[in-house]
Amino acid sequence: MTVAAPPDPPPSDLRERILTAAEEVLRRYGPAKTSVVDVARHLSMSHGNIYRVFSSKEALRGAVVERWLERAHAPLAAIVAGPGSASDRLTAWFTTLARQKIEKVTSDPELFQTYQALLHQVPELIDQHLVWLDAQVRQMLAEGQATGEFRFADLDQATVAVLAATVPFRHPDLIVATNDSPDHAKLRAVLALVIAGLKTGALA
Amino acid sequence: MTVAAPPDPPPSDLRERILTAAEEVLRRYGPAKTSVVDVARHLSMSHGNIYRVFSSKEALRGAVVERWLERAHAPLAAIVAGPGSASDRLTAWFTTLARQKIEKVTSDPELFQTYQALLHQVPELIDQHLVWLDAQVRQMLAEGQATGEFRFADLDQATVAVLAATVPFRHPDLIVATNDSPDHAKLRAVLALVIAGLKTGALA
Repeated sequence: MTVAAPPDPPPSDLRERILTAAEEVLRRYGPAKTSVVDVARHLSMSHGNIYRVFSSKEALRGAVVERWLERAHAPLAAIVAGPGSASDRLTAWFTTLARQKIEKVTSDPELFQTYQALLHQVPELIDQHLVWLDAQVRQMLAEGQATGEFRFADLDQATVAVLAATVPFRHPDLIVATNDSPDHAKLRAVLALVIAGLKTGALA
Repeated sequence: MTVAAPPDPPPSDLRERILTAAEEVLRRYGPAKTSVVDVARHLSMSHGNIYRVFSSKEALRGAVVERWLERAHAPLAAIVAGPGSASDRLTAWFTTLARQKIEKVTSDPELFQTYQALLHQVPELIDQHLVWLDAQVRQMLAEGQATGEFRFADLDQATVAVLAATVPFRHPDLIVATNDSPDHAKLRAVLALVIAGLKTGALA
């Protein structure tokens, strides 16, 4: 019996090219007007090629947003995995996150709005993002606890408190009003207070 | 020459009755549909009587919102002026503010939305409210600094940091998602960290 060979797996650079084109089309036309056909036209290929890699418009959009979040996550993950005390890494991590958000909002507000709109169409990605941020903070706190740098009784409680105290420097609806870049003086003051509390055992 | 005697000043209970009626009418019909005539009808009086006290519909609305804010402010001011260490008063003050907001949002969400909408029509009242909250926190911090309970270099910086760290427990758009009443466990954890930082001189 002769069967057709299975199609070659899509080369990963095709996937990347499609995502980059989709991002470009989204930037130009906004999420409401972006179709797979538009993305295919931008790449001078048939939309069948795109459907070989992404099963639907929704899958393509989800992948675009996911890649956008992953790009933001990479430097944060590097800080968590990097050298330095837990206090120093927490400070670097939150100021990096704040700087990323402010840059996105101020350098290209329309694209930022586009991504916010896309994210709200894929709420599980918002949840994943928040879980990821939570896990990063939790890891730094746990490491600080293990070395004796921090003293607290309950890792969950400490994580929740640190994340709550920094909301205005992370929340997309507040970050512009709160913006205190380039020095992040307000955020640094909040972190200084919170970190001192972690060190002195306020939650022990 | 005979002139009419100046009208009697409106008795303050008339002012209160009008404000209470306006609140009731707003609660029933929402801000878009509330007119001075509706308020007058509710009181079985002519709208001329109301215009003797409030020069315009806008003046009446502003006074309703102002009274609503003043009612919320009274127990907070009592905490600032009351006994206890600055730390204890800060904790009582922020948990009282959070409880007030949560009660308003959950007990009568439509009325809360009505007041939010009215507030946004009178943005100077929002500013006044924020300035008032800022002054209250500033006073407790300054008193803690004066007694040596807190050690920090810059009262402005300390005030901004304490207010920023508590945003999710105060902001009308976040309070429901953040809601951790009746114990305010998350808010108490944030305050414990921040207050420890103020005591140990993290901003000194």
